[in-house]
Amino acid sequence: MAKITMLGTGLIGTFYTQTLHGLRSRDRVVNVYSRSAERAKAFAAERGILHWTSDLRDAIQNSESEIVVVGLPNDVHKDAVRLAAEAGKAVLCTKPLGRTAAEALEMLEAVEKAGVFAGYLEDLVYTPKTLKALASTKNGAMGRILWTRSRETHPGPHSAWFWDPVRSGGGAIVDMGCHCIEIGRNFIGKDKRPLRAFCWGATQVHPIEAEDHAIGLVEYEGGAVSQFEVSWTFRGGMDLRDEVSGTEGTIRLDHFLRTGFEMFTAAGEGGYVAEKAEGQIGWLFPVGDEVHALGYVHMFQDMLDAWEAGRAPMETFWDGYVVNTIIDACYRSMKSGRWEPVELAEWQVGKLSEPAKTSPPRAGKVQPKASGRPQEAKTSANQGKGRGKAGKAGLIAIKVERLPDGRTKRILKDKATGRIIEKIE
Amino acid sequence: MAKITMLGTGLIGTFYTQTLHGLRSRDRVVNVYSRSAERAKAFAAERGILHWTSDLRDAIQNSESEIVVVGLPNDVHKDAVRLAAEAGKAVLCTKPLGRTAAEALEMLEAVEKAGVFAGYLEDLVYTPKTLKALASTKNGAMGRILWTRSRETHPGPHSAWFWDPVRSGGGAIVDMGCHCIEIGRNFIGKDKRPLRAFCWGATQVHPIEAEDHAIGLVEYEGGAVSQFEVSWTFRGGMDLRDEVSGTEGTIRLDHFLRTGFEMFTAAGEGGYVAEKAEGQIGWLFPVGDEVHALGYVHMFQDMLDAWEAGRAPMETFWDGYVVNTIIDACYRSMKSGRWEPVELAEWQVGKLSEPAKTSPPRAGKVQPKASGRPQEAKTSANQGKGRGKAGKAGLIAIKVERLPDGRTKRILKDKATGRIIEKIE
Amino acid sequence: MAKITMLGTGLIGTFYTQTLHGLRSRDRVVNVYSRSAERAKAFAAERGILHWTSDLRDAIQNSESEIVVVGLPNDVHKDAVRLAAEAGKAVLCTKPLGRTAAEALEMLEAVEKAGVFAGYLEDLVYTPKTLKALASTKNGAMGRILWTRSRETHPGPHSAWFWDPVRSGGGAIVDMGCHCIEIGRNFIGKDKRPLRAFCWGATQVHPIEAEDHAIGLVEYEGGAVSQFEVSWTFRGGMDLRDEVSGTEGTIRLDHFLRTGFEMFTAAGEGGYVAEKAEGQIGWLFPVGDEVHALGYVHMFQDMLDAWEAGRAPMETFWDGYVVNTIIDACYRSMKSGRWEPVELAEWQVGKLSEPAKTSPPRAGKVQPKASGRPQEAKTSANQGKGRGKAGKAGLIAIKVERLPDGRTKRILKDKATGRIIEKIE
Amino acid sequence: MAKITMLGTGLIGTFYTQTLHGLRSRDRVVNVYSRSAERAKAFAAERGILHWTSDLRDAIQNSESEIVVVGLPNDVHKDAVRLAAEAGKAVLCTKPLGRTAAEALEMLEAVEKAGVFAGYLEDLVYTPKTLKALASTKNGAMGRILWTRSRETHPGPHSAWFWDPVRSGGGAIVDMGCHCIEIGRNFIGKDKRPLRAFCWGATQVHPIEAEDHAIGLVEYEGGAVSQFEVSWTFRGGMDLRDEVSGTEGTIRLDHFLRTGFEMFTAAGEGGYVAEKAEGQIGWLFPVGDEVHALGYVHMFQDMLDAWEAGRAPMETFWDGYVVNTIIDACYRSMKSGRWEPVELAEWQVGKLSEPAKTSPPRAGKVQPKASGRPQEAKTSANQGKGRGKAGKAGLIAIKVERLPDGRTKRILKDKATGRIIEKIE
Repeated sequence: MAKITMLGTGLIGTFYTQTLHGLRSRDRVVNVYSRSAERAKAFAAERGILHWTSDLRDAIQNSESEIVVVGLPNDVHKDAVRLAAEAGKAVLCTKPLGRTAAEALEMLEAVEKAGVFAGYLEDLVYTPKTLKALASTKNGAMGRILWTRSRETHPGPHSAWFWDPVRSGGGAIVDMGCHCIEIGRNFIGKDKRPLRAFCWGATQVHPIEAEDHAIGLVEYEGGAVSQFEVSWTFRGGMDLRDEVSGTEGTIRLDHFLRTGFEMFTAAGEGGYVAEKAEGQIGWLFPVGDEVHALGYVHMFQDMLDAWEAGRAPMETFWDGYVVNTIIDACYRSMKSGRWEPVELAEWQVGKLSEPAKTSPPRAGKVQPKASGRPQEAKTSANQGKGRGKAGKAGLIAIKVERLPDGRTKRILKDKATGRIIEKIE
Repeated sequence: MAKITMLGTGLIGTFYTQTLHGLRSRDRVVNVYSRSAERAKAFAAERGILHWTSDLRDAIQNSESEIVVVGLPNDVHKDAVRLAAEAGKAVLCTKPLGRTAAEALEMLEAVEKAGVFAGYLEDLVYTPKTLKALASTKNGAMGRILWTRSRETHPGPHSAWFWDPVRSGGGAIVDMGCHCIEIGRNFIGKDKRPLRAFCWGATQVHPIEAEDHAIGLVEYEGGAVSQFEVSWTFRGGMDLRDEVSGTEGTIRLDHFLRTGFEMFTAAGEGGYVAEKAEGQIGWLFPVGDEVHALGYVHMFQDMLDAWEAGRAPMETFWDGYVVNTIIDACYRSMKSGRWEPVELAEWQVGKLSEPAKTSPPRAGKVQPKASGRPQEAKTSANQGKGRGKAGKAGLIAIKVERLPDGRTKRILKDKATGRIIEKIE
Repeated sequence: MAKITMLGTGLIGTFYTQTLHGLRSRDRVVNVYSRSAERAKAFAAERGILHWTSDLRDAIQNSESEIVVVGLPNDVHKDAVRLAAEAGKAVLCTKPLGRTAAEALEMLEAVEKAGVFAGYLEDLVYTPKTLKALASTKNGAMGRILWTRSRETHPGPHSAWFWDPVRSGGGAIVDMGCHCIEIGRNFIGKDKRPLRAFCWGATQVHPIEAEDHAIGLVEYEGGAVSQFEVSWTFRGGMDLRDEVSGTEGTIRLDHFLRTGFEMFTAAGEGGYVAEKAEGQIGWLFPVGDEVHALGYVHMFQDMLDAWEAGRAPMETFWDGYVVNTIIDACYRSMKSGRWEPVELAEWQVGKLSEPAKTSPPRAGKVQPKASGRPQEAKTSANQGKGRGKAGKAGLIAIKVERLPDGRTKRILKDKATGRIIEKIE
Repeated sequence: MAKITMLGTGLIGTFYTQTLHGLRSRDRVVNVYSRSAERAKAFAAERGILHWTSDLRDAIQNSESEIVVVGLPNDVHKDAVRLAAEAGKAVLCTKPLGRTAAEALEMLEAVEKAGVFAGYLEDLVYTPKTLKALASTKNGAMGRILWTRSRETHPGPHSAWFWDPVRSGGGAIVDMGCHCIEIGRNFIGKDKRPLRAFCWGATQVHPIEAEDHAIGLVEYEGGAVSQFEVSWTFRGGMDLRDEVSGTEGTIRLDHFLRTGFEMFTAAGEGGYVAEKAEGQIGWLFPVGDEVHALGYVHMFQDMLDAWEAGRAPMETFWDGYVVNTIIDACYRSMKSGRWEPVELAEWQVGKLSEPAKTSPPRAGKVQPKASGRPQEAKTSANQGKGRGKAGKAGLIAIKVERLPDGRTKRILKDKATGRIIEKIE
C-alpha cells in the first residue's frame, strides 16, 4: 500500500485521486493540499482523506505520507519538487515537468541529488492502447519507424492559469504538445536522440497572448519524424489520436472521440458526457471509463510498482526534461521560422536502460546550456499584451463551459491589467 | 481485502485471477483448484497463490478463504455452489448459472437457504461502455426502450467441454446467449417481466450436436423486444456489439473489433493479438486492455464492494435464474418453431430493488414449474449423434486454434463414441 | 438514349428523375405524370421536361416515350403496369412490386403476356458497395453463406400514403422489408428457394394501424438464414446497414450513417443534411452523393443497358414477386407467432439464369395459390382502428418533418375517420 | 455530347476513359494516343475507340475530336498543351499542371493566348464528399477556417516515370502534394493568397533520388494553415483523408480506407481489391465505386458542362499554376529549412469569380519571377545519385506490385546509369 500526499485539487488532482482510490486499489491519498483551505477541506471530506492543509511545506513534510504527487499549476512544480526532494519523499510530478528546460533540469538535479524516487506523470503514454501499440512496435510489427503523428485538440482548458503564459510557460504547446512529443518519442525509441524541431503556432481565436493552435515536427537521429498537432480552437469535443508509420506497418489510435461508443439522444440527460464534450443532445461519443482510457490507471500502477520494486518507472524526470528541451526548441522555431536544434544538456544513451534505484535512468555531470526560452516567453507575452489591449476597461470572455455539476464557469481577462480570472456561477 | 478461492484454471479462471490480482488491487486469490493437480500447481506457481488442490471439497472448505469463485465447466456449477453454500462461503459463479433453469433454481435456493452472499459473474453487463450506456438510459437519454440487439460471435470456444452439450447444456445459445439476454434485460429494465421467446438455431458448420449459430427474440412486458445473435461460425475475430433503440435515442457499442485501435502489419510479431483474433498479419484490431474491455474489472469491483458492504451486487443468482428460464424457452422454440412462454417460477417485481444482506433480491416461496429443457437437450444430443455418425472409426476436427504460447490446440470428436477431446501439440 | 415517362412526382420520382438526368447522362424524362396537374406542371418546368399530364392513361400512351417508370404509391402499381403492358411499353416499377404476392403475380403475368421489357426498381441491391460485395461473394471470398442481416430504420416515411395500410399494403415491412429481403436473397443466391419466414412486428410508437417496427427471419434452401430489421421508430437519421457471414468470411456495409464523412457544426447551415437526418447542429454524418450511395445510378444503368441489349436486368418482376411472397409469409407469421411457409406459385430454378428477351427469367404456367394477406391486412387495419379510437374528434400527429425547402410537413390522422393526410406549412 | 482525344493509356488514361464512357454517359473518347502503337491499338480495341495513333501531333489535330485530355507523364504536359492550344482545341490537363511553376505559367499563357477552354484535372477536389463538405463550408457551417489537413499516402506509384524526378519534377510532393494543396486551398478559400510554405521531406525507404515522404505547411492570407502529408512509404493500402477545422466546426473525410465497407476473407478471391490495396486475405476495405469515390465522375461532369456552357470549370489552369508555385516553395523550403515565400507572378483576386468564356478566371499581364526549382530538382537528383550509387552494376528493385490481371510488375533502377525501368512478368 502506498500512502500519498496529493498537491492540487483541480481537474488533475481529482482525476489522480479518483484513480488512486479507484476500483479495488490498495493505495490511499492520506493528505491533500490546496492553496485554498476551503477547497482542500471539501476535497478531503468528499474522498475520505484524513488530512488537509493549505500550507505547501506542511503538506509535503507530513510524516504519514511517503509519496508526494504534484498536481499543481506549472509555475509551482519546481518549488514543490524541491521541497519534496528535501523532505526525502518520493515525488511524482504532472506534465509538463517544467515551464522550460532550465526549470526541468533543476528539478531533475534536485531529485537526483536527494536520491529520491521520481516519476513523470505523462498519462497519455500509458493509455492501454498506447501500451499495447508500443509493445507491438517493440516486437517488430511496424519495422523501422518512419513517422508518428499525435494530435490533441479541444475547445480549451478548464482552469484560468492555463491561459496565462507567465504561470503555464506558454499555450497549447506547453499544455498538450508535451503529451504528443513524448508519445512520438516512445514509438520512435527513447534511445534515438531528438535533433531539431520546427513549429508553427498562432493565436487564432482567443484574446490571449499565448498560441491557441500549433503544429510541430521533431526530427530524430536515424531520420524518423514526429509530428504534433495541438489546439484550443477545436470544435466537437476532445480529439486525441495517434498514428504511427513504419516500413512494415501502420497504427491508428483513437482514444476519445471514436472508441466504439456512439449515442444519439433527442432528450439529453442533463449530465456530463465526457471531458471537453460539446453539447448534450444529438450524436454524442462518450468514453466508457475516462480515467482508464486516458492512461491514469496504468500510469499509477507503473509508478507505484516501480517505487515498491526500487526500479525506474517507464516515464522519468529525465523524460520530462527531454520533452521540455524539445518544447523550448519549438518556441524558438515559432519565432525564427526555421528548424531549431534540440539543446540537451547531455545525451548518454547507454544509461537509458540501466535500472535505477530511486531516480531516473540518468547519470554523470550535467552542464546545461543556457535555455533561451524563458526570455522569449516573456517577450511573446509582452507582444501579445500589446496586441490584445483594446483601450476601455472591462472583462473579455476567453472560454465559457458547463461544469459536471451544472454550474457555468467563465474564464475572463481583465483588459486593463491582462490578468486572467475564473468565475463560477 | 478479499481472500478468494479460485475454482478452475482455464481461460476464465485465468482472466478472473488476472483481474483480481490486477493493477494495484488489494484482493488476492489464496487458493486454487483444478481437476488436474498438475494444472493447479502450475497455475498457483505462476501467480503466487499459496494453496492449490485437485480436491473440490477441500478447495471450498479452505479456512483461509472467504469467497469461492466458480470458474468451472457448466456441469460442475451446481455442485460447487452447493458445497460453497454448505461451507458458509460467499460464492461468485460464472455464467451461465445453470445448464437449465431447474439447475439455476436449485442453486438460487441453496444460497438463499444458507444465507450466503452470492453473485452472478455476468461480465459483459459490466463493460465500462455498457455501464455508462445503462446510466444514460436510466437518465432518460433513450426515452422508452423499444429494442435491443446484442451480438456475440466468434470462430468457436477454446475448451472441449463447450462443444459437448451434455456438459455445457447446449451450444452457442447457452455459451453466449446468456450474455446477450442479460444485456438486453438490463437496458429494457429488470423490472420488466420477460414474456415469451422465439429462437432459430442450427448446426451449420461443425460436426457437433449442438447449435453453432442462433438468433433469438425475447419479448418483455411493455412491448420491448430484445434480439440476440450468437455464433461459433463467425470469421474475422470476436464480434461483440450491442445496440439500443428508444423513443428518444439510439446507442451503438462495439466492445472488441472496432474500438479505435487499428494496426496493419506486413511483418507480424509472432504473438497473441486478442481473444479469438484470426491471423497475425494484415489489418488487425487489437483491444487495449482486454480484461477491462470485457467487464471483468468492474464486475469484481462491484462484487467485492457489495460483499464488503453487505448489499446485493448488480448481478445476482436471481438474474442468472431469469436468464436460464429465457434460454430454456429459446431451446423449446427452436424445436416448436413458435414463440414459447418464459416460465419463471415466480415474479416479484417489488422485491427487485430491495437491498439484500447476503443474498440476491428475492424472497418468498418458489414453486418451480417443470422445466422441460434437460430432456430436450438429451433428445437433441441423440438426434445429433445419429446425424453425425458416418460409419468408420476415427477423429473429426471441430476446431484448430493457435494458443498464445505458440502451440496448436485441436478439439476433436471421436466418431465412434461421440466423445469430444482436446489435443495440444 | 432512352426516352422516359415518369409516373409520380414525389420523393421517389424526384430521385429517379435526378438520376436519369444526372451527370452526363444521355437519357431523358420526356413526359411526367402526377395526379395533381399543378405538381406535374411545376415538376416538368423545374426539370426541363417537355410534356406533363394528370391523366395516367395519356401519360403511359404518350408516343414519344419508350419506357414507363412507375414511381407511384403502391396501390397504383398494378394498374400502371397493366396499362404500360397493354401499350407495349417497357416498364420499370418501383419497390415493392405489389402490395401482396397476388398483385405482384398479376403484374408479372401482364408483362409476360405482353412480351414487354420489365424491371424491378430495387435500388438498394445496386448500391456500389453492395454490387462489389456481391461480386466478392460470387468469387468465393465468403465461402458458403450462412447468414445475412439487412437493416433499414429511420424516423418514418415522408408521404401520407405510406402510413395508410390500405394504400401501401402494410407498414415498415412492406415499405423497407422489401429492400432487406432482396439484399439477403442476392447474397444467399437467387437459385436458393426461400422456404419459410418468421416475423415479429408491432406498433410501438405511432398512432397508426400498421407495424412501425419489425424483425424477420427468412430461411432458404441449403440452410442460410436472412434477417431483416425495419423500423419507423429509429432516432438519429437513417440507418442502412448490411452484414454477411459465410464459412470463409464476413462483410459489413454501412450505406448512410458512417461512410467516412463526419462533420461537427455549432453554427449549422440552415440546409438539408441527408435523407431523414435529424438535426442541423452537433455531429452530423452527411453522405457525399446520395442518389449514388442509394444505388439509383447503377440501377438505371443496368435497367437501360439491359433494355438496349435485350437482356434481363439484374432485378426483374420475378424477383419482385418472390419478395412479395416472402412479405406475405411475414405478415402471416406476425399473426400466427410461428414460421410460415413461403408460398411461391412456382419455382423453376433452371430458368433463372436464362437470358430473357424483354421479360424476366421466368416461364411456364403459374398457378397461384390464394394469398391470404390482403384479408389479413384489412383485419389488421380494423383492429388498429379499434385500438386507435380515442373518442373525441380531431387530428393526431403521426410525423412532423422539415422539408429541404424549409417548410414543415405534418402527417396527420383524422381520429373520426382514420384517414391520413398531409399538411405543408 | 463531347468528342474527346485521350492522350495516354496508363492507369490515369484508363480511369479517365472508364469515367467518360461510364454509366449512361453521352460522351465518347473517339481517338487515343500512346507513345507505343501497340498499346494505343489495344486500348482502342478494348474500349471501342475508333482512332488510335502513336503520333502526338496527329492525335491532337484529329478533326473529329473537340477536346484533348492530357493523361501523360508530367514531362510531356507542356508540349501537349501547347499543341492543343495551337490546334484551337479545348484542353484538359491532368495534375500536376507543370513540373514547376515556370512550366505551368507557360501553359497558362498558351491557352490564354489561344483563347481555348482549359481545365485542370484535379480529381480529389471533386470527390462527392469534398464537394458536399465545401458546400457546407461555404454555407458557414465551419465558421472561419483555421486549419486543414490533407493526407495521401500509399506504398508508391505504379509507373516507372513517377520515380524519376527528371521526368516527374520531384517525388511524393509533386505526385500527391498537388492534390493536398489544392484541397486545402478550396476549403480555406481561393480568394485567400498563399503567403509562405514550409516543408520537410526525405528519402526514407526507396533507392531513389526524390523524396518518398514529406510533410508541408502552407500559410494563407488571413492566418489559416493548410497541412499536407504525402508518402510512398505507407503500408496498409491507400490512405486518403482530409480534415478541416474552423471556429464553428470540424470535418473529417475518409475517401478510401474506412468508407463503410469492411470485409474479412480467409479464402480470398484472386482478384483486385482496390487501388494500392495490400493483400488479398484478412480484413480488407474495398471501395464501392472507385472512379466515383476518387472524384473522376464529378470532375468530368463539371469540365464538360463548363465547356458546353462557356463558363470556367471549378478547377482551371490558374489553379494548377498556383499549386505549382506552392510546390516550388516547398522544394525550396526542404533545402533551406525555413519558411519560403510563395512567389506568384500576379494575384488578382477580383478576377477570380468572374465567369470566363473559354479560359480560366485570370486576366492581365503576367510577369513571372524566376522560379528557382528546376535547377534545384536537378541538384537534388545529382545528390541522390551520389548517395544511391553502391559500386557494382545491376538492378535495384524500387517497387514490386501485383497487377489486376495477375501479372507482376517490377520497377527497377539500373545502378550504373540511374535509369528507372519497368518489367512486367
